[in-house]
Amino acid sequence: MAGNIKEINDTGLSSRYQTKTQRLIKRDGSFNVRKTGIGKFESFNLYHFLVNISWTRFLFLALVLYVLINFFFSVLYCLDGPENLGVEAGKGYIHGFLNAFFFSAQTLTTVGFGRINPHDNWTNIIATLEAGIGLMAFAIATGLLYGRFSRPVTNIKFSSNAIFTDWGENGKALQFRVANSYSTEMIDAEVQVIASWLEKDNQGTDVRRFYNLNLEYKKIVFFPTVWTVNHIIDEISPLYGKTDEDLTAGEAEFLILFKAYDDTFAQTVNARFSYRHDDLLWGVKFKRAIFIDEKGKSFVALDKMSDVEKAVT
Amino acid sequence: MAGNIKEINDTGLSSRYQTKTQRLIKRDGSFNVRKTGIGKFESFNLYHFLVNISWTRFLFLALVLYVLINFFFSVLYCLDGPENLGVEAGKGYIHGFLNAFFFSAQTLTTVGFGRINPHDNWTNIIATLEAGIGLMAFAIATGLLYGRFSRPVTNIKFSSNAIFTDWGENGKALQFRVANSYSTEMIDAEVQVIASWLEKDNQGTDVRRFYNLNLEYKKIVFFPTVWTVNHIIDEISPLYGKTDEDLTAGEAEFLILFKAYDDTFAQTVNARFSYRHDDLLWGVKFKRAIFIDEKGKSFVALDKMSDVEKAVT
Amino acid sequence: MAGNIKEINDTGLSSRYQTKTQRLIKRDGSFNVRKTGIGKFESFNLYHFLVNISWTRFLFLALVLYVLINFFFSVLYCLDGPENLGVEAGKGYIHGFLNAFFFSAQTLTTVGFGRINPHDNWTNIIATLEAGIGLMAFAIATGLLYGRFSRPVTNIKFSSNAIFTDWGENGKALQFRVANSYSTEMIDAEVQVIASWLEKDNQGTDVRRFYNLNLEYKKIVFFPTVWTVNHIIDEISPLYGKTDEDLTAGEAEFLILFKAYDDTFAQTVNARFSYRHDDLLWGVKFKRAIFIDEKGKSFVALDKMSDVEKAVT
Amino acid sequence: MAGNIKEINDTGLSSRYQTKTQRLIKRDGSFNVRKTGIGKFESFNLYHFLVNISWTRFLFLALVLYVLINFFFSVLYCLDGPENLGVEAGKGYIHGFLNAFFFSAQTLTTVGFGRINPHDNWTNIIATLEAGIGLMAFAIATGLLYGRFSRPVTNIKFSSNAIFTDWGENGKALQFRVANSYSTEMIDAEVQVIASWLEKDNQGTDVRRFYNLNLEYKKIVFFPTVWTVNHIIDEISPLYGKTDEDLTAGEAEFLILFKAYDDTFAQTVNARFSYRHDDLLWGVKFKRAIFIDEKGKSFVALDKMSDVEKAVT
Repeated sequence: MAGNIKEINDTGLSSRYQTKTQRLIKRDGSFNVRKTGIGKFESFNLYHFLVNISWTRFLFLALVLYVLINFFFSVLYCLDGPENLGVEAGKGYIHGFLNAFFFSAQTLTTVGFGRINPHDNWTNIIATLEAGIGLMAFAIATGLLYGRFSRPVTNIKFSSNAIFTDWGENGKALQFRVANSYSTEMIDAEVQVIASWLEKDNQGTDVRRFYNLNLEYKKIVFFPTVWTVNHIIDEISPLYGKTDEDLTAGEAEFLILFKAYDDTFAQTVNARFSYRHDDLLWGVKFKRAIFIDEKGKSFVALDKMSDVEKAVT
Repeated sequence: MAGNIKEINDTGLSSRYQTKTQRLIKRDGSFNVRKTGIGKFESFNLYHFLVNISWTRFLFLALVLYVLINFFFSVLYCLDGPENLGVEAGKGYIHGFLNAFFFSAQTLTTVGFGRINPHDNWTNIIATLEAGIGLMAFAIATGLLYGRFSRPVTNIKFSSNAIFTDWGENGKALQFRVANSYSTEMIDAEVQVIASWLEKDNQGTDVRRFYNLNLEYKKIVFFPTVWTVNHIIDEISPLYGKTDEDLTAGEAEFLILFKAYDDTFAQTVNARFSYRHDDLLWGVKFKRAIFIDEKGKSFVALDKMSDVEKAVT
Repeated sequence: MAGNIKEINDTGLSSRYQTKTQRLIKRDGSFNVRKTGIGKFESFNLYHFLVNISWTRFLFLALVLYVLINFFFSVLYCLDGPENLGVEAGKGYIHGFLNAFFFSAQTLTTVGFGRINPHDNWTNIIATLEAGIGLMAFAIATGLLYGRFSRPVTNIKFSSNAIFTDWGENGKALQFRVANSYSTEMIDAEVQVIASWLEKDNQGTDVRRFYNLNLEYKKIVFFPTVWTVNHIIDEISPLYGKTDEDLTAGEAEFLILFKAYDDTFAQTVNARFSYRHDDLLWGVKFKRAIFIDEKGKSFVALDKMSDVEKAVT
Repeated sequence: MAGNIKEINDTGLSSRYQTKTQRLIKRDGSFNVRKTGIGKFESFNLYHFLVNISWTRFLFLALVLYVLINFFFSVLYCLDGPENLGVEAGKGYIHGFLNAFFFSAQTLTTVGFGRINPHDNWTNIIATLEAGIGLMAFAIATGLLYGRFSRPVTNIKFSSNAIFTDWGENGKALQFRVANSYSTEMIDAEVQVIASWLEKDNQGTDVRRFYNLNLEYKKIVFFPTVWTVNHIIDEISPLYGKTDEDLTAGEAEFLILFKAYDDTFAQTVNARFSYRHDDLLWGVKFKRAIFIDEKGKSFVALDKMSDVEKAVT
């Protein structure tokens, strides 16, 4: 009965009245949506920024900051007089500044070799501050490095295509595969699939509608291998009766959210993906991807998880 | 049927027998409730305090502590005799104390330049302790800084007003909008709305009652744009038949709890908000806030999320 | 109908065949149960131990370890020859050892003043190791201190007594109160109550049975004040028809688990409590504990949360 | 009615078409499944690796890295000229290199004794970098050590055997026991049991099928003692009518997932286990494991949790 079909109109993702669009979720799982009308400053969170940038940028930034702080303190020491650092005077500005710079680095990192060292009160006060600031800065760096390290990272692989395959007698099913390509152990894996396409509304306008797809199993307890997620296209499925042409014309997109508990990070991780109408295959089925070796041990061939073969009728 | 109306009497938030009050939740999301009858000490948690104060206060406190600890140890060194730090004697108390202070700072931060250094056993023992205490103190600072940095911070925006808008044929709906103004990615967003107003009870006393409002969608899977939260005012809604005057007389307040999973912090974050009777607009509808640019990419105009227009009948 | 009464036989908490016992949950919330038949070593977890001991014991342990490690390395330096640390020889064993000890402390904490410093290769190698070990040790201390600091701590107060109070017409209810005495903000508070008492089984033996009590509200959205938890004693309640004498004879105990999301720790916290048969009051009701001040601001009087008054019939 | 039997076909764990296999979950709780067809590099996560290796390997790796970094910088200092470190020249290459090595260690750990110290600009620049890198390296080590320490570790014990015991009149039940052998306190314990065995499908091929077993209590609130998990073999149980021979022929395996909230780690922990057909005992019952001592205090004898006795008929 069509009365059971539930349009979910995921208002968080898209307006009712939009038309031809790019994909809503990029293949890397990020949302393909810009935000405007908000100041850079207001939408910026420092921790978020420092935890999300690449390692190269993070380390480069750390280096630049290290040099800048040392430069700043070198200038302070020079203003106070480089001779107060206990090194021979009369060797020129550059020699004095370099001495101050190296002294600054030795203070900031708390190495404190001591050959260059503060002799008068002002230099001592600046050095006292710098050593304190240095320790605080490295405390912050420690926190950030831990924050970066311990953020849950997944390597969830989805099959290259979603397929429409035969199911039961004269039936059809939509399937795709998902696997954890890390050697981490996962439990309580869960998948949600939202189908979306353009439809004509009462006035004949193209309206993008969103439908939640029922899955044969939406949750599995253990997830050590490949999971073939299965949506059976029965009469209450919004895909019932849809053809390849319908989905192409409607610019269909299937949005996927995967969640599981990861033992290493001791928390729930997630991965997003989407299949567009041109990522769909019809009339095929997935090849086998789980095997048993000669010793009776199971193994999963991750390189075969996207392999399909002609369905035999 | 009115029998379906569920009064929730949220005893955690308010007594049954209170009358005219200030708003229960401030616009910044904190509860507008004092606690009395409990000692300062008993209700105080150090970690809570140090993690919640502003950065300015936190850094000031750190500086004060740094100076105080150094001061304390300087006195100890002076008591033992500043000459045991290996610097020239006979320069007066102030010179001796300053030397002790700078030495203390060099020890506490483990810079240890070495020009000033402990010569006798007692000075050595104090320095041994101070260096250990210094490292512990900076270990604690590291932990606190990480605790401050990694605490989930949200920048959830709510529309300035909640609106009563037309819905279906002759129907009405209560709507407000919510958006994540950070560039972080959120999933599994969820909203709960509790309506509250004064009613007469059997004895004719004003009683504040609380009602949980059913939402068209109380949870959405993806949350990259603006979500227009929608409560349809059907016959089982406690708002059924209520007018602007009723809500003003009853000092109505709509309490909102928003929760979502934030990718950056890898945990569920929350935001609270409330609309008072004077934050309500009648007979308007929200303007469009999600658009598609010329390349087909969706974008959301956060500065338009509160914009309303006259509803056409 | 009594057929609805569900015996829950919480096998995790107690055997079916036990008799007169001490309370199962102590007033501080810990389980009053010993574990035997398992080696100290097997049931011991180092992190658990170091995170749970008192601050006094933790700091004392840290001090002892600090001295011990330094002692160990001092012996190594002395074996290699204290003259290799560059201090004057010929001052006797004790002077040599103390020098080695202070040098060790300066190396372990990475202060490194440098007056005492390694001159030969072996002393240098030992110092190289000690400095590395020192940093590792303080890294571990940092982690532990953060672990101790950031563990969610609650200060949940329960009313001194649970009460049997009048409810509706001729009805009764079991009530107790719970409040958060910290100034932290909590949401999604939840309570579970398990009643337990001795009953005669078929053979006439005393058997301890466990029953889950239905609550009027088992979950509230906001929790800024005092929550009066309410179990209505209707016909399907296992307490239906029970008298004070029944509960005393049956050594009744009401076990309580409280959970809520705490904003400061950004995670769900819990508290446990229990009321024994001698903690129950009959025929009273709780006094009011939430008030509105002259400015219309709500406040909760935590010192009044256990106050009861004679119920008027 | 057999119509109620639900085959769960846990596709995350195993294909439909596999035959005689090793156990799916090892006794230590890890999955007995290999992953092939994926590059070492792609399936490797550094944090995962460093957090999961043994302490011995972790500390050995840290030592090797410490020596290697020092070696690398020693070479740099030597290239620049060991005389720039301020030590006497003319003592040969080895003496120069060792001096450079010890200086490097003193810089990397920020000990900085100062007897050996940088004199020219290049040496100073290298030392400035090394001290910075040293602090970063130890910041990373701190994070990793905390990550290793704070990962939730459980010591959940399962009884050696699962048993088929008498239940009610002429009925049977499958039981096993689980206990927390740490002294940590756990709440909200939960168990899931999946039965799996080979069956003939329509074509007569051996197919491994998975069934979710209903438990008498799948969740308990408090977990201080031993929990006897109980699956009653009623008509809708997939075990109904199965004999020891059936399970042996079908290579039956019972997969168990245990979850609970651990107070020390302030998060949900889990443990996995499995019983193979040869781990099953028939016609016995568990001996009592919870006792009350003379003071009325409960205790649980963990060494008796696997003890069974002949069931009396």
